[in-house]
Amino acid sequence: MNEMKILIRGFGTVGQEVARVLDKKRNVFKDKFGLKFDLVGVEDSKGSALSEDGLNIERLLSTKKKTGSIKEKGDKLGINEINYDLLIECTPTNIKDGEPGLSNILNALKDGNDVITSNKGPLALKWNKLAKTAEKNNAKLKFEATVGGAIPIINLAENSLASNKISSIIGILNGTCNYILTRMAAESLPYEHVLNEAQDLGIAESDPTYDVEGIDTALKMVIIANSILGAEASYQDVDIKGIKEITTESLELAEEKNKTIKLLGKADKEKIEVEPRMVPKDHPLSVGGTLNIATLETDLAGEITVTGKGAGASETASSVISDLIEIWKERN
Amino acid sequence: MNEMKILIRGFGTVGQEVARVLDKKRNVFKDKFGLKFDLVGVEDSKGSALSEDGLNIERLLSTKKKTGSIKEKGDKLGINEINYDLLIECTPTNIKDGEPGLSNILNALKDGNDVITSNKGPLALKWNKLAKTAEKNNAKLKFEATVGGAIPIINLAENSLASNKISSIIGILNGTCNYILTRMAAESLPYEHVLNEAQDLGIAESDPTYDVEGIDTALKMVIIANSILGAEASYQDVDIKGIKEITTESLELAEEKNKTIKLLGKADKEKIEVEPRMVPKDHPLSVGGTLNIATLETDLAGEITVTGKGAGASETASSVISDLIEIWKERN
Repeated sequence: MNEMKILIRGFGTVGQEVARVLDKKRNVFKDKFGLKFDLVGVEDSKGSALSEDGLNIERLLSTKKKTGSIKEKGDKLGINEINYDLLIECTPTNIKDGEPGLSNILNALKDGNDVITSNKGPLALKWNKLAKTAEKNNAKLKFEATVGGAIPIINLAENSLASNKISSIIGILNGTCNYILTRMAAESLPYEHVLNEAQDLGIAESDPTYDVEGIDTALKMVIIANSILGAEASYQDVDIKGIKEITTESLELAEEKNKTIKLLGKADKEKIEVEPRMVPKDHPLSVGGTLNIATLETDLAGEITVTGKGAGASETASSVISDLIEIWKERN
Repeated sequence: MNEMKILIRGFGTVGQEVARVLDKKRNVFKDKFGLKFDLVGVEDSKGSALSEDGLNIERLLSTKKKTGSIKEKGDKLGINEINYDLLIECTPTNIKDGEPGLSNILNALKDGNDVITSNKGPLALKWNKLAKTAEKNNAKLKFEATVGGAIPIINLAENSLASNKISSIIGILNGTCNYILTRMAAESLPYEHVLNEAQDLGIAESDPTYDVEGIDTALKMVIIANSILGAEASYQDVDIKGIKEITTESLELAEEKNKTIKLLGKADKEKIEVEPRMVPKDHPLSVGGTLNIATLETDLAGEITVTGKGAGASETASSVISDLIEIWKERN
């Protein structure tokens, strides 16, 4: 590949940050990896901007900021006619049917195009179909950004620990829950109070269901279990318990035993679980605030643990673009 | 490359474990990565065993165990005549002149052969020469095993976090020191007492100088700073302070502030330091026992921390063979 033609579908916070970083680091990536690229198309919920010669990213971001969309009048090409090598799929997660991400990804893979996604829905619902479609069409499908934000869990398992058999994974993969439990424990404050605080700070969403009921963690664990452990699981297979029923009393009881309560995701090849569990305070999994963490149990390297920020536009872009660089290396 | 011809120089604990794991996982690696290999030569301090058609690894390990060497009588080829693709260099670290590892590695690179090493000496003394020789001859030089045992620090920076600029690295990279400080703090025992205990347990060597004076940590930090930060430093450039003068009193004082003392290595592009420092007990760097840990400060992903076992034959083999798989992928 002389030059990578990139299409971004979904141009919210993550999509925009990916474009911004790609543009800002264009010369660094060219010098370091020989990477040359053009952003040939962007689609948001209102329309698309397309150019076979490459869009001006700075102008695109500025238009999006001013008008709320990147839609350009009089596009000669439809999004399905544009010629590209890599789809970066950043539409929002939908756990009912995975759309529109699922169709976006499948269409790209069927045409033999590589895909990077930050969208958990399609992978947690239709892993087998996606993996098989990618394999059949000799297309690459990468998704580090879907699990643990900036933390490289998938890449760690597949590359850095390639010599190992990984038997299980345990982790804290939702920063909102971790923030709420950390604050509840530190200040002896009730759940509702801390949730409100988290919402004021922008750490929890106005409808926090998806996070606090453990759904987000479950989706991530399914993706991890399927890709790293070969589990062939779907979101429906996960036993899920969230944090809404955790009381200050139970946290105080844990404290007396020098423990704390964390919402843990656990997966081995047979079973995926999400539930609040007691963790000794000096245990590596006892990280506070909005941090995420994952421990991989391996046969040669023992337990390898990785910690970092689990969310944020820049952190998610870090994973998306690291995947992009890997695809560039593999294709060249 | 149809088949990777491997030469192992240095056949102590690490070299043997690498051979053992390669043999045991031969079919797994073939199925998973298409990796095919022959071990065409092994050299220990007493001699060598060579075979262009591939040595029988099981027999080789059994011979080594029984006789203390793998030297075979009547080898028709000398070690310099054998045809190979990859040198795995596992001779012991020598910080005076890096030999015999330095010459072993340079000779391999000059012939355009790839090299993986677990030997810190050559890299910490002659980084520039080695990096340039590799580049000039289009040969790959990988060395994950030299820093942090099982923990993938180099690979994490180069691949998983490829989109990031890494500005500094801080970590605990010597398990012996970490064990001694952890035990001293937990039991209020003096340095000499805990050192003896560590020696009895095989955690500290009979001559512990290399570990307790911070030399081992310094070598690792030089390798990390050069390869990840582009520092062009040498071992002589490091400010080193070890742990021999840490008293139980200073640990108790730290404890009063809810802190503990750790031997930390720190590197940015300008400066590399190794010294004991106070760390808050709830800080991610406050890991106990023989664990190693490294935190990478990045521009996009924030702080990414990785923890695991820093030593051990199986852990070191994990890193060596993960590097081997990466080279195989890059060459195919």
